[in-house]
Amino acid sequence: MSDIDWTPISGAVLPRYAGVPSFMRLPQIAPDDPRAPEVEIGLIGMPWDGATSNRPGARHGPRGLRDASTMIREMNRSTGQLPFSAARCADMGDVAMSPVDQDEALEAAEATVASMLSNDIRPVMVGGDHLCTLTVLRALRKHRGEAFGLILLDSHTDLYPPYFGGKTLTHGNPFRQAIEEGCIDPHRTFMAGMRGTSYNTSDFDYGREKGVHILPIETCMERGWSSVMDEARAVAGGGPVYVSFDIDFIDPAYAPGTGTPEVGGPTSFEAIQCVRALRGLDIIGTDLVEVSPPFDPSGNTSWLGVSVLFELICAMQP
Amino acid sequence: MSDIDWTPISGAVLPRYAGVPSFMRLPQIAPDDPRAPEVEIGLIGMPWDGATSNRPGARHGPRGLRDASTMIREMNRSTGQLPFSAARCADMGDVAMSPVDQDEALEAAEATVASMLSNDIRPVMVGGDHLCTLTVLRALRKHRGEAFGLILLDSHTDLYPPYFGGKTLTHGNPFRQAIEEGCIDPHRTFMAGMRGTSYNTSDFDYGREKGVHILPIETCMERGWSSVMDEARAVAGGGPVYVSFDIDFIDPAYAPGTGTPEVGGPTSFEAIQCVRALRGLDIIGTDLVEVSPPFDPSGNTSWLGVSVLFELICAMQP
Amino acid sequence: MSDIDWTPISGAVLPRYAGVPSFMRLPQIAPDDPRAPEVEIGLIGMPWDGATSNRPGARHGPRGLRDASTMIREMNRSTGQLPFSAARCADMGDVAMSPVDQDEALEAAEATVASMLSNDIRPVMVGGDHLCTLTVLRALRKHRGEAFGLILLDSHTDLYPPYFGGKTLTHGNPFRQAIEEGCIDPHRTFMAGMRGTSYNTSDFDYGREKGVHILPIETCMERGWSSVMDEARAVAGGGPVYVSFDIDFIDPAYAPGTGTPEVGGPTSFEAIQCVRALRGLDIIGTDLVEVSPPFDPSGNTSWLGVSVLFELICAMQP
Amino acid sequence: MSDIDWTPISGAVLPRYAGVPSFMRLPQIAPDDPRAPEVEIGLIGMPWDGATSNRPGARHGPRGLRDASTMIREMNRSTGQLPFSAARCADMGDVAMSPVDQDEALEAAEATVASMLSNDIRPVMVGGDHLCTLTVLRALRKHRGEAFGLILLDSHTDLYPPYFGGKTLTHGNPFRQAIEEGCIDPHRTFMAGMRGTSYNTSDFDYGREKGVHILPIETCMERGWSSVMDEARAVAGGGPVYVSFDIDFIDPAYAPGTGTPEVGGPTSFEAIQCVRALRGLDIIGTDLVEVSPPFDPSGNTSWLGVSVLFELICAMQP
Amino acid sequence: MSDIDWTPISGAVLPRYAGVPSFMRLPQIAPDDPRAPEVEIGLIGMPWDGATSNRPGARHGPRGLRDASTMIREMNRSTGQLPFSAARCADMGDVAMSPVDQDEALEAAEATVASMLSNDIRPVMVGGDHLCTLTVLRALRKHRGEAFGLILLDSHTDLYPPYFGGKTLTHGNPFRQAIEEGCIDPHRTFMAGMRGTSYNTSDFDYGREKGVHILPIETCMERGWSSVMDEARAVAGGGPVYVSFDIDFIDPAYAPGTGTPEVGGPTSFEAIQCVRALRGLDIIGTDLVEVSPPFDPSGNTSWLGVSVLFELICAMQP
Amino acid sequence: MSDIDWTPISGAVLPRYAGVPSFMRLPQIAPDDPRAPEVEIGLIGMPWDGATSNRPGARHGPRGLRDASTMIREMNRSTGQLPFSAARCADMGDVAMSPVDQDEALEAAEATVASMLSNDIRPVMVGGDHLCTLTVLRALRKHRGEAFGLILLDSHTDLYPPYFGGKTLTHGNPFRQAIEEGCIDPHRTFMAGMRGTSYNTSDFDYGREKGVHILPIETCMERGWSSVMDEARAVAGGGPVYVSFDIDFIDPAYAPGTGTPEVGGPTSFEAIQCVRALRGLDIIGTDLVEVSPPFDPSGNTSWLGVSVLFELICAMQP
Repeated sequence: MSDIDWTPISGAVLPRYAGVPSFMRLPQIAPDDPRAPEVEIGLIGMPWDGATSNRPGARHGPRGLRDASTMIREMNRSTGQLPFSAARCADMGDVAMSPVDQDEALEAAEATVASMLSNDIRPVMVGGDHLCTLTVLRALRKHRGEAFGLILLDSHTDLYPPYFGGKTLTHGNPFRQAIEEGCIDPHRTFMAGMRGTSYNTSDFDYGREKGVHILPIETCMERGWSSVMDEARAVAGGGPVYVSFDIDFIDPAYAPGTGTPEVGGPTSFEAIQCVRALRGLDIIGTDLVEVSPPFDPSGNTSWLGVSVLFELICAMQP
Repeated sequence: MSDIDWTPISGAVLPRYAGVPSFMRLPQIAPDDPRAPEVEIGLIGMPWDGATSNRPGARHGPRGLRDASTMIREMNRSTGQLPFSAARCADMGDVAMSPVDQDEALEAAEATVASMLSNDIRPVMVGGDHLCTLTVLRALRKHRGEAFGLILLDSHTDLYPPYFGGKTLTHGNPFRQAIEEGCIDPHRTFMAGMRGTSYNTSDFDYGREKGVHILPIETCMERGWSSVMDEARAVAGGGPVYVSFDIDFIDPAYAPGTGTPEVGGPTSFEAIQCVRALRGLDIIGTDLVEVSPPFDPSGNTSWLGVSVLFELICAMQP
Repeated sequence: MSDIDWTPISGAVLPRYAGVPSFMRLPQIAPDDPRAPEVEIGLIGMPWDGATSNRPGARHGPRGLRDASTMIREMNRSTGQLPFSAARCADMGDVAMSPVDQDEALEAAEATVASMLSNDIRPVMVGGDHLCTLTVLRALRKHRGEAFGLILLDSHTDLYPPYFGGKTLTHGNPFRQAIEEGCIDPHRTFMAGMRGTSYNTSDFDYGREKGVHILPIETCMERGWSSVMDEARAVAGGGPVYVSFDIDFIDPAYAPGTGTPEVGGPTSFEAIQCVRALRGLDIIGTDLVEVSPPFDPSGNTSWLGVSVLFELICAMQP
Repeated sequence: MSDIDWTPISGAVLPRYAGVPSFMRLPQIAPDDPRAPEVEIGLIGMPWDGATSNRPGARHGPRGLRDASTMIREMNRSTGQLPFSAARCADMGDVAMSPVDQDEALEAAEATVASMLSNDIRPVMVGGDHLCTLTVLRALRKHRGEAFGLILLDSHTDLYPPYFGGKTLTHGNPFRQAIEEGCIDPHRTFMAGMRGTSYNTSDFDYGREKGVHILPIETCMERGWSSVMDEARAVAGGGPVYVSFDIDFIDPAYAPGTGTPEVGGPTSFEAIQCVRALRGLDIIGTDLVEVSPPFDPSGNTSWLGVSVLFELICAMQP
Repeated sequence: MSDIDWTPISGAVLPRYAGVPSFMRLPQIAPDDPRAPEVEIGLIGMPWDGATSNRPGARHGPRGLRDASTMIREMNRSTGQLPFSAARCADMGDVAMSPVDQDEALEAAEATVASMLSNDIRPVMVGGDHLCTLTVLRALRKHRGEAFGLILLDSHTDLYPPYFGGKTLTHGNPFRQAIEEGCIDPHRTFMAGMRGTSYNTSDFDYGREKGVHILPIETCMERGWSSVMDEARAVAGGGPVYVSFDIDFIDPAYAPGTGTPEVGGPTSFEAIQCVRALRGLDIIGTDLVEVSPPFDPSGNTSWLGVSVLFELICAMQP
Repeated sequence: MSDIDWTPISGAVLPRYAGVPSFMRLPQIAPDDPRAPEVEIGLIGMPWDGATSNRPGARHGPRGLRDASTMIREMNRSTGQLPFSAARCADMGDVAMSPVDQDEALEAAEATVASMLSNDIRPVMVGGDHLCTLTVLRALRKHRGEAFGLILLDSHTDLYPPYFGGKTLTHGNPFRQAIEEGCIDPHRTFMAGMRGTSYNTSDFDYGREKGVHILPIETCMERGWSSVMDEARAVAGGGPVYVSFDIDFIDPAYAPGTGTPEVGGPTSFEAIQCVRALRGLDIIGTDLVEVSPPFDPSGNTSWLGVSVLFELICAMQP
């Protein structure tokens, strides 16, 4: 065992705005660092927005989230958890994803996650746009040898058919692709929060035909988020599950800094409760994607994003 | 019939941020265009804030809303409507309203709407400050020959008595003026969302004396918006009705870019539900006013504004 | 009696954006002005952020709030109150607090409040960071000769133990210090809205051991704010009580401009209702703190802040 | 003599961001205050943009400039002047100019200046848009009984012919109108800094025909600003002269917050030197107009504006 | 001949902020419009940033520039030109460039320019990132059958060797690629304004070896821009020449909204003079690239960008 | 020797916006790291603004500058230097300076620098406000045993007498204090760029009496910056010298993000040339202070700041 200090330095010692900003002030341990095998939960940045159909900027997400994350303190007041004491967590850096070559970028990302998995590190991916998630799902699928469940909190299904003249790899397609490639089990796939205008019904149609549970926002609001999350657990919770959180799940009043906002979403309180409801599931990996700092003049989106990340890390722990 | 393509080009073909931004990528057909009679629903901009008592900038509303509107897709996911297929909609441009002469500005606006009405085009007015609405009401009154109902979603009644030393034409007076001029039937006039500090009770007093139904925000919150809209339909729905939506109806957390915000308003989800509840009424015209882009650093207000506009257009359809 | 005009000039006479911005356009009467004894409720600015552990800027709070406050009109529509007619209110200026010497700053602030109290002026303090509140509590304690109740609406308890190597005077400590110094009666101290990550449980432990009633946000959301405020009145209301309102009580979507935001808070509507529920208590002083204009690009926070201030002043009146 | 303290409180006593922001912390003395006759130089705000042809917001100019002005210290380091000791200066408040009635607004403004002149107070007008200047020129003309010289630093001549269908009172016309009305002597009128696209040559043609000296920016840059100002003194300096400074004279990199910016202008250093070169002239009044805070996210424009104002006040003194 | 009105509507008739914003209010004529052959100078948007190595957002450039461009008036005051009367100019829309497939995007762009050239329309390309320029150069090369000269005003040479593991198509490579492909004649290629840190000297080495004239900023500042442009004309002017203007040529104080700013550049005045010095050359096409509105909070960059565009169009005319 | 890789990873491998942002992507080696003795030039952050008299936020300077610094490439194009190859440079982190206790903060900072000096590391301090410089000067004085020269590029002398009732430790006093304490030799102290309003002449009087060479901005502009820097070298260069660069030296159009801007300063080009002129001096330490990210909406100030930092590091090398 190395002599790594796994506990982030307290804001009561080094003020929260000070110091080189690793994620949540965790130790910086690259995936190829000899100490990597000691890591249990690894935060890995994917600063890439090469599959973005609308406003770009998610490539700046990991930077913005690292900056905001030094405001996180040690304890989850509501649950009493001390997540960085309970597990050895690390900032494993950012994948060097080419901004000009989609194939290379995706391969590099998948390879990095594969390397983490080979060391039994559970990945917490910090996007980047939503296509980044596909690289994690692919690596997990290869590593595990079988499909797993998925819980998606998002305003879009990301199940769209090919786009822009036949492209299957945009940030509107990852979960369709993941189903086609056998990464996720559609019958154990749960999606909530969908809203906004749509091109047509092909994403819902595809999903429902495959067996995906999709809850539009009206249904969520009517049932209440507690009930929604009960359903999520029932659908996806009977085995290993991946959790993907798109920041545009939350209403743009709370999270303006994203590429494709949709009005009429949940509050930050509701979103946090949703994440807390995941605790106890067998979460094999998770992500927070689509934070775009150039569209976030108040900084609220990054701050909310890291608050969600913190809760996701807590939810991965008993 | 001309060979106009009434369907906006899809964001999956031309990315949503590309192209000259007409409202929702609709065809551009001026009121005096020979093809105007083919239009059924016409979006007309009134880039004017000459009646604004507080922060200006609503003159930039149509520009800001056109820019944001290219993010709108074809289908209303919640209702299943395809509003641009169901009716021939067009961007009819902006009225040339003088920024320095109120009389000329109002006359030009009313004349433009009158010209649209003469072609049986239902107006969707995009403001501009709230006095712009009066020009639509006047044109409708003259065209129809009788008063009609009004549903107002707003944080203010805009029923104030003369202002700034006797001015009856400010953005705080349009509906008082519309009642005085016989444009709207006060007994079929419904207003909800009123809040904030006030000069006195003269606006409420006037309205209630005339028979207007006014629901302050506390009443709305207590009853729930579904019940509020039932009442709106009951009061105003028994005949032709005009719907006016002031963006300051919604809480400034959601819509900061407006001239006279008032804290303590509904969420974007609630606002959207209110608009959807209007479907089925005989809506003879509608508007979205008071979006002021200079006070909207995140762009959220324009985005929410066009989302409301889209729902208004859907509500006008069966 | 002097010939002071205590009624703010109406926005219908002098537009709301015009004129030298005193708080709510009230007369400017310094604490050492010979007319000071005529004042009943005095707004006093404490432009100081020298105890801020995170993002600074609360020193600009009084300026930002004065600017926004000219948008306040005379009447509280919801309660019917005319607060500036019911009591003689004044803008008593800002304390000259040294930005580089904490001791001097706190002494100057306490002395100013003491001077106000000697004239029987109820203080409405406009921060400034939350340590400013301690100066008001100290002055009140000395003036009254005994401890009093406290109602705190905040996302933090500000009951933390010494900080940064033993500092008892930071904006995380004022109420612990106030309890230690006997200013407030812990058994009549009520706190609601607490949330976010924490260093540990020492603040809750300390408070509860002393008898303070602390309601975390989850409890508040579950019970409803009306019930929460009933409890506040029951706990703190049996005698003179001070009300402290930290703008970070409200969710950062509504109030981004603050130094230490915490996601997952109440809406502006809920916050306003909480303040209104205080009416009828024997409020001996109040404050609104932690507004930081440099982090408030839309101006929403200042506007919400003065709306809260207005309601606080109303709540101080029968 | 009253006991007014004419010296602004020092930033070394009350921090510069503190206190109710009168212009440069000068005493607040309204034009109808009994002490008004003691004032020698009066700063008067005209928060009005009702003649603005492009982006509005100059109505917020006096507020923005008051806020920035508390950063001004007592001494002009370069010239050694102590302008607030050398003359009794005061903040005389803002004129109550109707935002919805141009005639009333202009009359109120002229009347206020007339009242100042009747007390031998030299006006320093703080706009507001450039049409506000006409009200000062009219009042001066009536008070003095004869035309006077003018020095204009601006990117536009504001000599345009009627606009928007015959309007002679827009912010593009004041000096044409002032010539037509005999307020200023065209042969003693000097204008420098003109640039940008134009509708046509009618403004230059008109001016030159009347005898106005107009220097386009290319001429200024070629000759150097020192030579330009020598010419200004030669043309306009042989008698009483009014100085009008439009903030858009300066390049928008320095002053983005204005309604009609034109690229390719002088630097702030050059602009300050221009104002200093005016010292010694018989300046009967001056103004700084067209600062529009809503378009000034960094606050630079207001800060540069008050720096120019300070230099203008210094230039009015021996 | 069609009945197109080629003269943009005046801002004195329709206020400058009003109307659907085509580039400079020119008629909208798509490359495949039957009226396209009437166009002489065509503005074509390339809303694409898929080759951007640093901050994205140039995809929003055409939108931002269209919005700002309605502030352009008819006449170039300095040169007396009326560019939209002298040539038939049109807004030819934006190319539908895939945000997720570089090859398709570049092909679509080149095909569009080729179509314009087949109608003898001189292209004015509005980027987008600098790789967009390569598509214009390729189309011109194919259309003309031989290489031509190039004048580049930029802070970078864009002559870098392959990047990110061998990519030849990034926004750092277009002119190297254009030389390799024989589009431009390196001996008639002139570049000025280069500055900032660099990876190494390979771009300068390559260029100089090929015969390109490269003037770093220090040389420009020392010689003066007039002399620099004399050299540009001497090097590149003896035949057909393409002019490429990267907004990052200008100092970021003037043009912050760009992906890869470099401090220490020319002023807007100097930049405008540089463009004017091109008049009289045989300009076969031109562009303005790398404006990134998300990084332009004041809007200055778009405004400066369209001012440069206007001067480029003027420079293309006799 | 350890196996540290001293060369920052290239932006052509890991995109410039990616990765944990240490200063200029240098290795992170804390002052107490066993590898610290290998460092030759150490960048040390002082995230502290506890001596700021006006707008705060310099505590966020090191964070903002680290973020911007990843845009720096390896080579100084103008000088051909490869500063990170020529010397072993490191990011030594931030000092844990108490935001609430000035004495402790200053002691911690001085101790950190002392520790660096004991390892023969030349300090490059990144502020923080200008009082932070005093801690470096004190440590250098103690380490060297004698006074040294100083070159200050700033808009203020920071030679003010005690402030706010006798405080000698504000950001307006460090060089007076440094002279009083014998840290710097006043006869080898050179200051250029002074401008703006002043409280009085006491700072100039004090400095000149002590023998300090002070050049106000007007003198600099008249002589030219090259001549100014020749004088700087003549005055201060005959021995070891410290270089302090306050970002407010540069005009606020270029650097708005600072606490006490003064209009009328040099351009970024001029500022960079000034720093380059320092090369060859015996620079024993340097700093860049007063960058305040909360007042820097475009990010220009941080970007210009790191460009200056890079040039300072180059100037420290042969």
